[in-house]
Amino acid sequence: MALESLFAPDRVAVVGATESEGSVGRAVVRNLLDTFDGEVVPVNPNRESVFGLDCLDSVRDADADLVVVVVPPQAAVQVVREAGEAGVRDAVVITAGFGEAGTEGVARERELEAVAAEYEMNLVGPNSLGVVSTPKGLNATFGPRMAEPGNVSFMSQSGAFITAVLDWAADHDIGFNDVVSLGNKAVMDEADFVRAWGDDPETDVVLGYLEAIEDGASFIDTAREVTQETPVVVVKSGRTEAGAHAAASHTGAIAGSEAAYEAGLDQAGVIRADSVEELFDFGGILAGQSPPDTDGVAIVTNAGGPGVMATDAVGDSGLSLASFTSETHAALGEALPDMANVYNPVDVIGDARVDRFRAALDIVLSDPNVGCAVVLSCPTAVLTYEELADAIVEAHEESGVPMATVLMGGEATRGPARTLAAAGIPNYFDPSRAVGALDGLRRYREIRSREYEPPTEFDVDREPAREMLERAAARGQTRLGVEAMGLLDAYGIPTPDSEIVTGREDAVRAAHDIGEEVAMKVVSPDILHKSDIGGVKVGVPAGEAGDAYEDLVTRARNYQPDATLLGVQVQAMVDTDDAVETIVGANRDPQFGPLLLFGLGGIFVEVLEDTTVRVAPVSEPEAAAMLDDIDAAPLLRGARGRPAVDEAAVVETLQRLSQLVTDFPAILELDVNPLVARPEGAEAIDVRLTIDPEKL
Amino acid sequence: MALESLFAPDRVAVVGATESEGSVGRAVVRNLLDTFDGEVVPVNPNRESVFGLDCLDSVRDADADLVVVVVPPQAAVQVVREAGEAGVRDAVVITAGFGEAGTEGVARERELEAVAAEYEMNLVGPNSLGVVSTPKGLNATFGPRMAEPGNVSFMSQSGAFITAVLDWAADHDIGFNDVVSLGNKAVMDEADFVRAWGDDPETDVVLGYLEAIEDGASFIDTAREVTQETPVVVVKSGRTEAGAHAAASHTGAIAGSEAAYEAGLDQAGVIRADSVEELFDFGGILAGQSPPDTDGVAIVTNAGGPGVMATDAVGDSGLSLASFTSETHAALGEALPDMANVYNPVDVIGDARVDRFRAALDIVLSDPNVGCAVVLSCPTAVLTYEELADAIVEAHEESGVPMATVLMGGEATRGPARTLAAAGIPNYFDPSRAVGALDGLRRYREIRSREYEPPTEFDVDREPAREMLERAAARGQTRLGVEAMGLLDAYGIPTPDSEIVTGREDAVRAAHDIGEEVAMKVVSPDILHKSDIGGVKVGVPAGEAGDAYEDLVTRARNYQPDATLLGVQVQAMVDTDDAVETIVGANRDPQFGPLLLFGLGGIFVEVLEDTTVRVAPVSEPEAAAMLDDIDAAPLLRGARGRPAVDEAAVVETLQRLSQLVTDFPAILELDVNPLVARPEGAEAIDVRLTIDPEKL
Repeated sequence: MALESLFAPDRVAVVGATESEGSVGRAVVRNLLDTFDGEVVPVNPNRESVFGLDCLDSVRDADADLVVVVVPPQAAVQVVREAGEAGVRDAVVITAGFGEAGTEGVARERELEAVAAEYEMNLVGPNSLGVVSTPKGLNATFGPRMAEPGNVSFMSQSGAFITAVLDWAADHDIGFNDVVSLGNKAVMDEADFVRAWGDDPETDVVLGYLEAIEDGASFIDTAREVTQETPVVVVKSGRTEAGAHAAASHTGAIAGSEAAYEAGLDQAGVIRADSVEELFDFGGILAGQSPPDTDGVAIVTNAGGPGVMATDAVGDSGLSLASFTSETHAALGEALPDMANVYNPVDVIGDARVDRFRAALDIVLSDPNVGCAVVLSCPTAVLTYEELADAIVEAHEESGVPMATVLMGGEATRGPARTLAAAGIPNYFDPSRAVGALDGLRRYREIRSREYEPPTEFDVDREPAREMLERAAARGQTRLGVEAMGLLDAYGIPTPDSEIVTGREDAVRAAHDIGEEVAMKVVSPDILHKSDIGGVKVGVPAGEAGDAYEDLVTRARNYQPDATLLGVQVQAMVDTDDAVETIVGANRDPQFGPLLLFGLGGIFVEVLEDTTVRVAPVSEPEAAAMLDDIDAAPLLRGARGRPAVDEAAVVETLQRLSQLVTDFPAILELDVNPLVARPEGAEAIDVRLTIDPEKL
Repeated sequence: MALESLFAPDRVAVVGATESEGSVGRAVVRNLLDTFDGEVVPVNPNRESVFGLDCLDSVRDADADLVVVVVPPQAAVQVVREAGEAGVRDAVVITAGFGEAGTEGVARERELEAVAAEYEMNLVGPNSLGVVSTPKGLNATFGPRMAEPGNVSFMSQSGAFITAVLDWAADHDIGFNDVVSLGNKAVMDEADFVRAWGDDPETDVVLGYLEAIEDGASFIDTAREVTQETPVVVVKSGRTEAGAHAAASHTGAIAGSEAAYEAGLDQAGVIRADSVEELFDFGGILAGQSPPDTDGVAIVTNAGGPGVMATDAVGDSGLSLASFTSETHAALGEALPDMANVYNPVDVIGDARVDRFRAALDIVLSDPNVGCAVVLSCPTAVLTYEELADAIVEAHEESGVPMATVLMGGEATRGPARTLAAAGIPNYFDPSRAVGALDGLRRYREIRSREYEPPTEFDVDREPAREMLERAAARGQTRLGVEAMGLLDAYGIPTPDSEIVTGREDAVRAAHDIGEEVAMKVVSPDILHKSDIGGVKVGVPAGEAGDAYEDLVTRARNYQPDATLLGVQVQAMVDTDDAVETIVGANRDPQFGPLLLFGLGGIFVEVLEDTTVRVAPVSEPEAAAMLDDIDAAPLLRGARGRPAVDEAAVVETLQRLSQLVTDFPAILELDVNPLVARPEGAEAIDVRLTIDPEKL
């Protein structure tokens, strides 16, 4: 098993063990003594014994495979060092007073990291509630309750939330394999546990409450692989501006942008839950059932109203209402009374006994268009929920079709709900939650069926690109404009013919080289809105390029005498017939690194904010999906009688740009605006970027 | 009280009373005998007595003020007639086999309606589970359970859903005043009960499950008034296409469009819940607490993580995180330990006892920026939820500030949750549901603060407009185009100067009358896309209008020889500088009548579907809100450096068009496309409409 001596140690040393009423050291020892199926070794130089066990002076003598640290922060690093020296490879540091506690704490946490690195320790915490693992009864926490056994493993960046969840879960028949309070994540972080639980046959679902992800790229790599076999569902809080602010003040961490998390978690194959309810609704059904083969839902109900509500919920979800085959309709017609509805949602009507429910279920579950089913029932005098639950479980087990139920009512539903839960079938009062849970299964099927491709490695001129950036840096220039179009050329992104000229004659010569008419634009890192000052001319006949040059330079000097003027760009005219202006951009997220952005130009980005984002580098399918994402996508596909643009060319540009910003961390921001997409090909007309010379 | 003899009769006759095991007649009598605080009179000519009560032969002799009908459908209409003749004014028809059961049933339901109308009866049903009213212990249903008393009244178009809700509610300490199973709504519909419960001092909240609204306009009128005093929360199912289809096959009713329901329910002041969970979350908190004075939420928690989750939920809601005054920060600084967070969300940290929670609460609740509060707690060793719940209730009662709580955990939360519920405070495990419930209160405050204005009655030329429509109808024309621009003129909607000409000379004369240059367009109800066939010319010099006329007519004849050609429109050129093209339209909904639509022209309507809808007639504020609704609204307000358009002119056009389509039910559809909105004024350039001559 993964992280064996963390979750299934034979000997656990508790450093700071004590019997003092109300102390963390006492709580940890008591919890271990209560349920742990191994040896507990108290360590405390100030005590002879703790709860009847001999107390050691030092962790060096404990011969432990896991050490739990509850000593004061000043002593904690030394304890971990001693443990490392003694060959212990797993440690849980419950002690607080590290990164969350001022400059001194931050320094202490760095020391802890260094010690853990030196001894290659799997260190959980500091500032952790501890870890739980039910197979061996390990409760190395100071929480009030042990988890019930189960096949869900759970990590949380809030220790208190774990205490709440364990208490709630015990009341809802939800069990856990491992539970980890991540604490400050000085060493072990979410990616480590996702990896470990992905390898653990006892863990069928990974759930998490996270406020930040430490290393986005490594998390994506790990989770992408793990989620092909094991579903991962996460509440990542700080989704909203207010929430992000609250999370930052809670953990002290600077979280990346919500857009980055949204894209990154999705690219990682993680199912993101928006609420605690959704986290456990998804977790519960994923722990008990396999994803459906198709998206069609069959609804079987004894009451029309709830059937309609369930149908609405299907409409809200990624599932669809199954269209039954004619055989199914015929069989239902045979099995059900005349007043019943044999179309989906199937209404077996109010006088249905359990056998009629069962007959209808068996018929719809064998329909090839049915991927999953919702069974709804209102209380009636002619059936008991106990018998109905038994029949549903049987039908589920015989068919293997995923299911959720809505046996509506109060106390009378508790026993039947437990029967259903034991078979992995969740029961709700609200039809929309039943459908929502099934939609969680569908989401996981979609993830499991993804075929991740590595990003295409285009053959590019990397060194010339580097030299261009280095030259700009050498000039002290951090903001680049059209003078950096060469970067795009170097990465194989098509641009119109152009030249930057610094004199009247040059302008004329360049214009004649380029075409009969040209576009001309002032080149200056200091003048942002060039067209506003008349710094752009289009359709200049080549013969008039000299006058145009003089005019542009004069305007720039008049407008901003102190602006650095790099020259004037002479560019081929761009064919805009049937073209759509798009924007392709990139910036950097502190957790996830380079983020790629795509949208249509003008009002679509500026007013409608119709854009989409991915963590770079992107593969071809990921880049292609960006085009589908935007609301204005139909405009790329020839809406309103226009020809479609060359999507493949846009997708390739996205991938090449992804490669560029991945290759050069020094590029902090980059915008190609516009990238003109035409029925054949796409061309980058203008570019702006910001670089950090120190990262070159 | 409202509907006194329906909900609080003294004598109830049950026609079709019986002791037969499993019969509806038996169930109704038993339910009444069990809890009704009045006399029960069984009626059944085939029985001497029922449960020891003398059985009458006819309802005529019952001297009842409410009659409950459970006889077979063939006999039911006659029973109601006899009751009417005997002076009974209230009837509940439980019997099924009416509108939901084929042609015969539909005819029977018409008869029933006629009888009820003749005797002015308040008739519930047919095909109803019955009615419940707790003050008098009235359970005139055949359901398995009586409601607990409370201040919520509930109506449902699904009787089975009522049985489910009553069972569930009893288990969740939710009580009801009246409960009505609407059945087929032959006579009494949702508007009747909204009105009655609005007048009923015992009903503080109205909840409903509806699959259709019978008469949208009357429902809006009624609910608008009632919701100023009493909140109404409704699940209207059939929201999605699949759901609407399912609802239609369930009730046999043709439901109007979802867009009409969405607009109509909102205009009615009804809070629409998307799920059963939301219905009762909103209903519960509205039954127990008053709306907040401001949108600021204070969050007080003993654990950071759940505090962040609650903050995210605030970000998702219409509420906002309260900014505390500096006095509050200072007072919290005094009251809380150093490690605590005195900024919102307030973290009293894990070692907080109840007194620290209480101190923090008292401070934030007296902050003027705090409108409501969420209290969150994870289980800790230093507090009990019983004491915390008591402290929260005290703080709530002293401050009067609305609250929801998240005392997280399992069984240990049940008693405290009951304590909180008794004070009207809902407790949830999921922070987002607590915030969602408070957001329900906020939504009701927004509704209560609406000041409904009657639609402006513009002084229009109604008769000339009618004559125009009649002339078209007389010609057998049901689809009208630019030839109907006069309708817009008659209703005071600005249009460019124009004339329809039918000859070369006329064209030249008209063009000279209108201006130096004109736009010309073929006028034909049979040619839809006139510009596609070259049927539109713009910028025609007045002198060339004759040639242009000939050319347009020739093109039209060549393109579609059999098309009716009404002539050629000569129109003044439209100034499109700084203009925004908008679309204003109307169609008819079977339930709500005229619906008004607004959006921006071109891709905004056709590709992005960025439109908004209102039930007409609209008041000035309702028309103005339509401009705010669309995503592209910033384009009307001068995004990207352009001048803003004359919003008032657009709003007035919407209102005038609203008046037009309200005045003439014969107008089935109407589109003004484009309505050109300029920095000063707005002008309708083209119009299309479809009329139903029979409605003139």
